[in-house]
Amino acid sequence: MQSDTRLRTLFNPDSVAVIGASRNPGKLGHVVLANLVGAGYRGKLFPVNPAGGEILGLKTYSAINRLPHSPDLAVVVLPRQDVLRTLDELAEARVGAVCVITAGFRETGRDGFELEMRMADLARRKNITLLGPNSLGLINTECGLNATIAQAMPARGSIGFFSQSGALCSAILDWADGEGVGFSKFVSLGNKAALSEADVLEALGDDPDTRVIIGYLESVDDGEKFLRKARAVTGTKPVIMIKAGTTPSGARATSSHTGSMAGSLVASTAAFRQAGIIEMHDLEALFDLARAFSEQPLPKGPNLTVITNSGGPGILAADACEGAGLNLARPSQKTLQILTEALPPFAAIYNPIDIIGDARADRYRATLEAVAQDEITHAILVLLTPTASAEIEATAQAIIDTAKACDKPVFACFMGHERIKPGRDMLLAAGIPCYAYPEPAIRAISSMLAHYRWLNRPYPVEVCFRRDKGKAEHVIAKARRIGLQELPFADAMSVAAAYELPVPETRLVRTSDQAVRAAKKLGYPVALKIVSPHIQSRADVGGVAIDLHTPRDVRDAWLDITSRTQRKRPDAYIAGCLVQTMGPIKAREVEVRFTQDPQFGPLLSFCLAGPLSEMLGDVSYRLAPLTLQDAQDIIREIRSFPLLRGARGEEPVNLTAIEDILLSMSQLATDFPGIQEAVLSPVLVNAEGAFVSDLRLTIG
Amino acid sequence: MQSDTRLRTLFNPDSVAVIGASRNPGKLGHVVLANLVGAGYRGKLFPVNPAGGEILGLKTYSAINRLPHSPDLAVVVLPRQDVLRTLDELAEARVGAVCVITAGFRETGRDGFELEMRMADLARRKNITLLGPNSLGLINTECGLNATIAQAMPARGSIGFFSQSGALCSAILDWADGEGVGFSKFVSLGNKAALSEADVLEALGDDPDTRVIIGYLESVDDGEKFLRKARAVTGTKPVIMIKAGTTPSGARATSSHTGSMAGSLVASTAAFRQAGIIEMHDLEALFDLARAFSEQPLPKGPNLTVITNSGGPGILAADACEGAGLNLARPSQKTLQILTEALPPFAAIYNPIDIIGDARADRYRATLEAVAQDEITHAILVLLTPTASAEIEATAQAIIDTAKACDKPVFACFMGHERIKPGRDMLLAAGIPCYAYPEPAIRAISSMLAHYRWLNRPYPVEVCFRRDKGKAEHVIAKARRIGLQELPFADAMSVAAAYELPVPETRLVRTSDQAVRAAKKLGYPVALKIVSPHIQSRADVGGVAIDLHTPRDVRDAWLDITSRTQRKRPDAYIAGCLVQTMGPIKAREVEVRFTQDPQFGPLLSFCLAGPLSEMLGDVSYRLAPLTLQDAQDIIREIRSFPLLRGARGEEPVNLTAIEDILLSMSQLATDFPGIQEAVLSPVLVNAEGAFVSDLRLTIG
Repeated sequence: MQSDTRLRTLFNPDSVAVIGASRNPGKLGHVVLANLVGAGYRGKLFPVNPAGGEILGLKTYSAINRLPHSPDLAVVVLPRQDVLRTLDELAEARVGAVCVITAGFRETGRDGFELEMRMADLARRKNITLLGPNSLGLINTECGLNATIAQAMPARGSIGFFSQSGALCSAILDWADGEGVGFSKFVSLGNKAALSEADVLEALGDDPDTRVIIGYLESVDDGEKFLRKARAVTGTKPVIMIKAGTTPSGARATSSHTGSMAGSLVASTAAFRQAGIIEMHDLEALFDLARAFSEQPLPKGPNLTVITNSGGPGILAADACEGAGLNLARPSQKTLQILTEALPPFAAIYNPIDIIGDARADRYRATLEAVAQDEITHAILVLLTPTASAEIEATAQAIIDTAKACDKPVFACFMGHERIKPGRDMLLAAGIPCYAYPEPAIRAISSMLAHYRWLNRPYPVEVCFRRDKGKAEHVIAKARRIGLQELPFADAMSVAAAYELPVPETRLVRTSDQAVRAAKKLGYPVALKIVSPHIQSRADVGGVAIDLHTPRDVRDAWLDITSRTQRKRPDAYIAGCLVQTMGPIKAREVEVRFTQDPQFGPLLSFCLAGPLSEMLGDVSYRLAPLTLQDAQDIIREIRSFPLLRGARGEEPVNLTAIEDILLSMSQLATDFPGIQEAVLSPVLVNAEGAFVSDLRLTIG
Repeated sequence: MQSDTRLRTLFNPDSVAVIGASRNPGKLGHVVLANLVGAGYRGKLFPVNPAGGEILGLKTYSAINRLPHSPDLAVVVLPRQDVLRTLDELAEARVGAVCVITAGFRETGRDGFELEMRMADLARRKNITLLGPNSLGLINTECGLNATIAQAMPARGSIGFFSQSGALCSAILDWADGEGVGFSKFVSLGNKAALSEADVLEALGDDPDTRVIIGYLESVDDGEKFLRKARAVTGTKPVIMIKAGTTPSGARATSSHTGSMAGSLVASTAAFRQAGIIEMHDLEALFDLARAFSEQPLPKGPNLTVITNSGGPGILAADACEGAGLNLARPSQKTLQILTEALPPFAAIYNPIDIIGDARADRYRATLEAVAQDEITHAILVLLTPTASAEIEATAQAIIDTAKACDKPVFACFMGHERIKPGRDMLLAAGIPCYAYPEPAIRAISSMLAHYRWLNRPYPVEVCFRRDKGKAEHVIAKARRIGLQELPFADAMSVAAAYELPVPETRLVRTSDQAVRAAKKLGYPVALKIVSPHIQSRADVGGVAIDLHTPRDVRDAWLDITSRTQRKRPDAYIAGCLVQTMGPIKAREVEVRFTQDPQFGPLLSFCLAGPLSEMLGDVSYRLAPLTLQDAQDIIREIRSFPLLRGARGEEPVNLTAIEDILLSMSQLATDFPGIQEAVLSPVLVNAEGAFVSDLRLTIG
């Protein structure tokens, strides 16, 4: 834990005081002390209890100011009303780190929230590292520190874990105990009054005992900081996380549970992806992955070879590969030759390699050896069903030997229960992930490949755009001064122009005569659009006419648009119409947008214009600022991208023009956090270039 | 097994002969006999081996014609080359049912395939019930019949199982052994030379010992028969199935494994849905569900109440409810009152009900009792994490007592491993599904709700349409006679008209002058469409012009269309253009289509017209014939349905008009299996009605 000496004190204290230590085994103040003693903590332990005496054979101090010297870490297990005062005393005693186990703060309402704020404030002023309150505690297996109220001490291992849910910590400790999974550090974040997920993540990133980090979060307090720290950590070790409360039902449950806002799923998913965090949506997957990452090397490519003694599970594995980015590549000619000689005639030597039901361990071994040396293969999955001929332990041994001798990740799936147990136990003991079904194995390999690609991604290219920030500032400030929520269209256009977005030339007119004159000036064809402060989406009220070629067209359109709008929205004040130069007629229509996410800041989105994209969830997201790679990826990520690339014999559109718009928007969002939402829709794009046909800017 | 006396003989034989019984414990011919003896089969056993003597203390016969009387069932475990001859001898001896365990038939290539066909033919002629070949065997726990080469005999239970993969059977038996799951019947289908999945499904449906049926299939031989039988069975018991090989990778693996065609995912998914089969995609889910269905009553509605002692898992459960069709309904006023009194002030009394981390069993019990009597709740899920205060066994008991006293399904999720094990064991023993994570519990409840709804679906309304079948027949026969693959447009229109589809009036013209004359006759506005036998999609070559109001428009369009088509497809012969009456200009465009699936017959699909629907997977499917309900559902199932219902202030389109088109198409597909594909696209639909603007009919 080099990152921060304050966190080093928290995780590696030379002495620990338990404030509120109790003689009564039913009390949490007893459990903490017993855990510290039981886990074999080698530093000094100071129980503090007004009654003094001895607890668990340890001399007990009646007050903090009676301690022989200032402890590095104090664990507070007192009634809520005593915590703030105690924190003050600990500050007096110059204690470096405090873990508050006591609950009843932010999560219980206004009083608790205020008390918690005062604690956080005190910790900040006195430079105390404060974990919690409402924390289950923390564990460092490396120095035998178990400062928790949990029921079990995990074995030493290379998984670092942090969680915003304390109860989940209990469950995980119990699970780890049963499964024989070890941890390096184990941190229950509690209410995160001071120490945040970002701090702990950074500390685990710097911890030499931690190879894999897993985390459970319900909220992120400072998204920007979290992302920055996470991006640094994921460059050296995998970070696998669940963000709970990402659905409407889940978000409601979260806010009633923690009193914190869950934020939007898309923002946190974009954040995780841009930070290289592997996001999972259920606990089983989280643990499967933690194990796989901590035990196996990363696959260096997508080619998975499946070896099986039965067709059915092989097919299920193949089904699972689809959509997981894995490829059942055909083995090399040399491997095929070896397999043809080694396997019976009815075996399937392609991939999945089906060595058929009467296979004994030698057939597995011969196949494994051939596949392990095949350069085409990046990862190996061995499936076994307990057929009459199956030699379960000998097969496990063949897998273990192969994994030792090659640098490719090797996974096993032994299906069944009692009969396969000895083999499964051997594999797990040897660090080979062994699953009960093919699907989770495929999922783990797929995530490890994603992490390999993250580590080997191109160096991010930061882009800075030429822009007239001062002009945009001026326009926005003016709108703010007169209390506008949304920039008038012409002003929005000025801002866009200042950021070199390809916008049309525009005139605001109030009569059809003015419209015809403006059209003549701009040059035909033109578009005509209704202007009303009360109408958000012009298309919805039929307030747009395009491709007007003659004065007659303009007059007809004026009549159409204004009468239709008045009919549909009789309440709306109509300020006039805009006359605009036209973008290309034959063009795809896309939409570029950003909003401000409360947790992660400006969130850009890209999709095809029109209601279908959102309805069918075909929208891609990135947090600003975008790198060049981000701008390229966000376009290619939508499933309807083939339409832009030129499906069905059409010309591809100018993708660089869209990238430029995305990068300008990223710059605008970063320059002006006060812009709540910006929508460019539709943006017309064809082979020549892009053209922002309409836009809307909303300010705070 | 009332359905079929032949199957009764297979599952409940009074005597079993093992042809190829062996003295050598390493041989399958020994394993089968040992399994029969070991499982305590109470009927007569006749080992058959040319050497005679005794095996496992049983008198062994040297040949089939030496048996004291004809056995009900013969299990054949001989080398491949002896099987056909033996089958003949068994037929001579009037054996009713034969299970062939021997492998090496269809799955090994042409020779094996032909041998298998001859066996199937013999069985048909001699009226033998033939299971296999390449079967692992079958089990009936009710009469202690274990005629398999598997390693374990499952306990008695209410789950009936059939599988096309023998090795998977081994894995499942081993798993069931470890988990204490019981089976009623257990059938390894093998190559399905004679006895098919449909036969076995029907038999399990009629079996009074079977409450839940689970199955694993790689192919369906006679889709129509399977569906008919399945629909009958799912009306009385749940059928849960995996269809493997549904992805391209999986399909490749399937065909190399079984030599059978996997068929399309969408067809089998549509088939399963229309037959009320619950489709799963992984084995874990299959088993989770089998257990849940066999042990708990069905929820009578979507309202799930979650009780938890920790916020985090509650949030994860809430997240999982989203999209699972479950609803975390607010408890009734009465329940809220009880909870307010019974729970501490910081508890969350809404849903999830968080009784917080210091909850003991009494708090669980009080909450459970309140929720169980609440009429709003249809199902209960109890989450427990092993906090310091958790009373695991007493809580399990409270759950068991509640489940006994109420008719709602009760599920548990005890998170952890060693500490929660005693509670988990108690729950499982009492028939309460207990999961390690919230997500699979939610998935099980969701599937049970779907089955409840299936059982309570409205009575299907069969629709028969007025149509001129003879006319369509005549047109199609004529096209066939002259060797056409696709009906000429005008003929396709006649067929459509014969089925009362709302098609435009159409004239085929060869010059622009003819086009103008035709337009005048039909009445403006008209559409103009290129006609070429070489062009499938007119829109792709720019071969369509619509909304032509004047002769001038028609002439311009003629020039545009023909020159554009010639430029894009210089190879295409242009037969002329069609002049058509126009459908409504302001309309949504949808697409109705059918194709012939090799396994399940005519498959109808519905989506919005345009490339996005297919690209984004927003297409819904049903197999013909459609009921009225099917026609209504297929429209409402697409995610973009809101656009048809009238999103954003627009009028809804005439859905009945689309339903009529779907039902006509269903009738056409059923009447003419020879029509390979029919595409109506676009179908224009607005508030008034629907109009088939273009169509294409492909014949065999």
